[in-house]
Amino acid sequence: MAKQDDLFKNVVSHAKEYGFIFPSSEIYDGLSAVYDYAQNGVELKKNIREYWWKSMVQMHENIVGIDAAIFMHPTTWKASGHVDAFNDPLIDNKDSKRRYRADVLIEDYAEKLNQKAQKEIDKARERFGDAFDEAQFVATNARVIEYRSRQREILERMARSLETENLADVKALIEELEIACPESGSKNWTEVRQFNLMFGTKLGASADSAMDLYLRPETAQGIFVNFLNVQKTGRMKIPFGIAQTGKAFRNEIVARQFIFRMREFEQMEMQFFVRPGEEMKYYEYWKETRLKWHLSLGLGKENYRFHDHEKLAHYANAAADIEFNFPFGFKELEGIHSRTDFDLKAHESHSGKKLQYFDNETNSSYVPYVVETSVGLDRMFLAVFSKALREETLEDGSTRTVLKLPSVLAPTKAAVLPLVKKDGLPEVARNIIDDLKWDFNVSYDEKDAVGRRYRRQDALGTPFCITVDHQTLEDQTVTIRHRDSMKQDRVKISELRGIISEEVSMRNWLMKM
Amino acid sequence: MAKQDDLFKNVVSHAKEYGFIFPSSEIYDGLSAVYDYAQNGVELKKNIREYWWKSMVQMHENIVGIDAAIFMHPTTWKASGHVDAFNDPLIDNKDSKRRYRADVLIEDYAEKLNQKAQKEIDKARERFGDAFDEAQFVATNARVIEYRSRQREILERMARSLETENLADVKALIEELEIACPESGSKNWTEVRQFNLMFGTKLGASADSAMDLYLRPETAQGIFVNFLNVQKTGRMKIPFGIAQTGKAFRNEIVARQFIFRMREFEQMEMQFFVRPGEEMKYYEYWKETRLKWHLSLGLGKENYRFHDHEKLAHYANAAADIEFNFPFGFKELEGIHSRTDFDLKAHESHSGKKLQYFDNETNSSYVPYVVETSVGLDRMFLAVFSKALREETLEDGSTRTVLKLPSVLAPTKAAVLPLVKKDGLPEVARNIIDDLKWDFNVSYDEKDAVGRRYRRQDALGTPFCITVDHQTLEDQTVTIRHRDSMKQDRVKISELRGIISEEVSMRNWLMKM
Repeated sequence: MAKQDDLFKNVVSHAKEYGFIFPSSEIYDGLSAVYDYAQNGVELKKNIREYWWKSMVQMHENIVGIDAAIFMHPTTWKASGHVDAFNDPLIDNKDSKRRYRADVLIEDYAEKLNQKAQKEIDKARERFGDAFDEAQFVATNARVIEYRSRQREILERMARSLETENLADVKALIEELEIACPESGSKNWTEVRQFNLMFGTKLGASADSAMDLYLRPETAQGIFVNFLNVQKTGRMKIPFGIAQTGKAFRNEIVARQFIFRMREFEQMEMQFFVRPGEEMKYYEYWKETRLKWHLSLGLGKENYRFHDHEKLAHYANAAADIEFNFPFGFKELEGIHSRTDFDLKAHESHSGKKLQYFDNETNSSYVPYVVETSVGLDRMFLAVFSKALREETLEDGSTRTVLKLPSVLAPTKAAVLPLVKKDGLPEVARNIIDDLKWDFNVSYDEKDAVGRRYRRQDALGTPFCITVDHQTLEDQTVTIRHRDSMKQDRVKISELRGIISEEVSMRNWLMKM
Repeated sequence: MAKQDDLFKNVVSHAKEYGFIFPSSEIYDGLSAVYDYAQNGVELKKNIREYWWKSMVQMHENIVGIDAAIFMHPTTWKASGHVDAFNDPLIDNKDSKRRYRADVLIEDYAEKLNQKAQKEIDKARERFGDAFDEAQFVATNARVIEYRSRQREILERMARSLETENLADVKALIEELEIACPESGSKNWTEVRQFNLMFGTKLGASADSAMDLYLRPETAQGIFVNFLNVQKTGRMKIPFGIAQTGKAFRNEIVARQFIFRMREFEQMEMQFFVRPGEEMKYYEYWKETRLKWHLSLGLGKENYRFHDHEKLAHYANAAADIEFNFPFGFKELEGIHSRTDFDLKAHESHSGKKLQYFDNETNSSYVPYVVETSVGLDRMFLAVFSKALREETLEDGSTRTVLKLPSVLAPTKAAVLPLVKKDGLPEVARNIIDDLKWDFNVSYDEKDAVGRRYRRQDALGTPFCITVDHQTLEDQTVTIRHRDSMKQDRVKISELRGIISEEVSMRNWLMKM
């Protein structure tokens, strides 16, 4: 665990030091769980978004995009269920005045029982050594059995109470378990209340006529309300998809883990409309296709796994996450959900308008079923960034920090470095930049010894360093250094575009997929 | 005027019919002054954004981007002056319960006086014909003089009252002019009050600890609060710029003119940090450079003009708009403002933190001056879209609707059309798409006669139609039709990528600039 914590701290500090991510409004001591993308972060984020967009929209004849506004008619959120059910159960401690998620307090308590059981197991393993049979021990040791069964009991009771909206029993459970406020140690609790996670605001100036608006908590509904307009004006035939990237907002009580769970975040979603009854086929197709997309970035197959949901949301008949091995363990990166016709039907009944598709092949009208793929752009950023960040020990025993970003996503594709700041080398370097900048993000760096400049570009994730030296003046060649292998080749200036393009162009990465 | 109105109506209906822009949440009867970008609109919008970004960030070694969050620490808006001064003066009619901008009511009244004067002039022109000397008539006709001087008086008094926050006098002026509610005809008005245009929301769950947040009303402040972090981690040297695109929100009372003035909109801004005293040089540089960018799109030089501000905002020492000839006349498209050190100094004093730059060359520290370029992405969309939309009469007397978008911005670069739906032509067409889709957005269309398909692609702004016919099966050639000239050439399939790329690639458009 300590090692993971260190890694995560390195990620956060590297992101700040090298201009990827800053805390929001830092001069005002920040804004909790909100972050800004800095000069290199914005390019990495843009590249991830574009890689997703191209692979979904440009590559698929039957997928188109939209860009719906963050503001939507408030009835949208009534229909989707967010007004009534997008809640966290909260409880306040009367002494510390701190507010908590009641379910998290109980889960933390249950987790402690689990840890106690684990301790028994660890102790027994130490005692018995190689002869230790864990399964048998867990099945027969009285203390372990008790811890585990109490843990299960507590979680089951909580789940039941939440499901039946029996908040009084959630409170009773907290009292029976004698859970104390982590800050004050007090057990003086308020009732448990549901708190809606949507941010509200008011549209219009007059108090009479003002309309309660919400900042959208998900981008999906912007696709559903536009479904028929897109289908008709785009003459789309089922099966077809509508893709969208954009901001969403959730008033999370416990927002944490850097950009993993933010109050303002960006989603990349695609809703795929299919004939009822065919949804499982496409659900499987998109599970596989989306995993392939992730694997194409080369961060390592072992860092991904599927987690099939046993308990399904009210709108789904199948759901799975693609989990990624973040610095704090495997967590959801993308969700693939078979949402049935829940959303479209809900919008039909709330709007009084038909949202049906006429199918030429079956000669019938129906409300399509929907398979959703939904990935967090900020989570993708964190996945890529944290897995790319490495401390390497070199052959000579020295170390380097290198950000091994997939080159297609790297903020800067090449840095051009004059070996010295004189003899006309800076001018040649600038000419090379003026030639390459039409095709790539390129940067110039003349400060410090060239070795230090290489290290700096390594830390920024720049795939290529191009060094201009005195030989360049004679034969129009430069050295090109590869970030990952640190190998240097001597090549003609005229070859640079081709070499870089071959390695970084999105076209080539998409073709490899 | 009637012709302009018709043009504007065409723009709005074409945008909807061809999948560029839909009213937000249309199934719920829409949300006033909020729009969604549809399947073709999203691509056009993305292309405009990317053309701006590349020309600002990728092309300039000394400009970097950022992507700050919409949520910012609320003190930001205290420092910027938005909490105290970002207001509209509003007045309610007590009978109709309708709310109006007091200044707009008065301006509308003054405009009527202007129209009366214009009527006198028009009548006289009719009477005198060619002999009519307008300047002399305006200078000597008693009625015209009176109308014009009353108009001036009213507007001057209003400006004075607003400037000195004398809202009672604004109310008095409305009463003296006997302005009636346009809806009810009643003159029964409330007091005039200032209404802040920022959307507010609350962060956090507990009533005690909730923080009042605003949705940012402009993106500029996200750059200012990050100025020093970017400068230091990016090792930027003055002069340098920070660019950003993103959403901003204003609770406009009178939002209208389609996507020209929306409550949720997107800005493309660049703040350029310079040595104090050098701001006018860069102000002139950016005026010229930004106009050149607009002209590069080829919408016609005559559609742009500068409007230098006489009255300056409190933060500026020079300001100009680039105005564009929209369907409703010349209006602001982009602002270039010399913002002095107002914003950075305000953030210094509100945060207690230094926002100074150490200048190696002058060996001194200072708060930089700032020159801003700020263009509305939605307005750019409207400018490009409305100017591109044409009704053309062809040689044979028939007409066509064509969207002559700059090809670099067109949502789809080429449509591939099999002449008939049989004989293997669809398969060849699809093979061409599979080859081109790695580089361009391409679409497939096999429905209806090929002439109708050409018209449809014209209306979508697609620069090229590629038609596969029986000859294609024999010699691997196709016809390629150019949207604007309607000229068709017979070319080899293998030449298509080069032909399209030459015409549409952003690289080439940027190089032409």
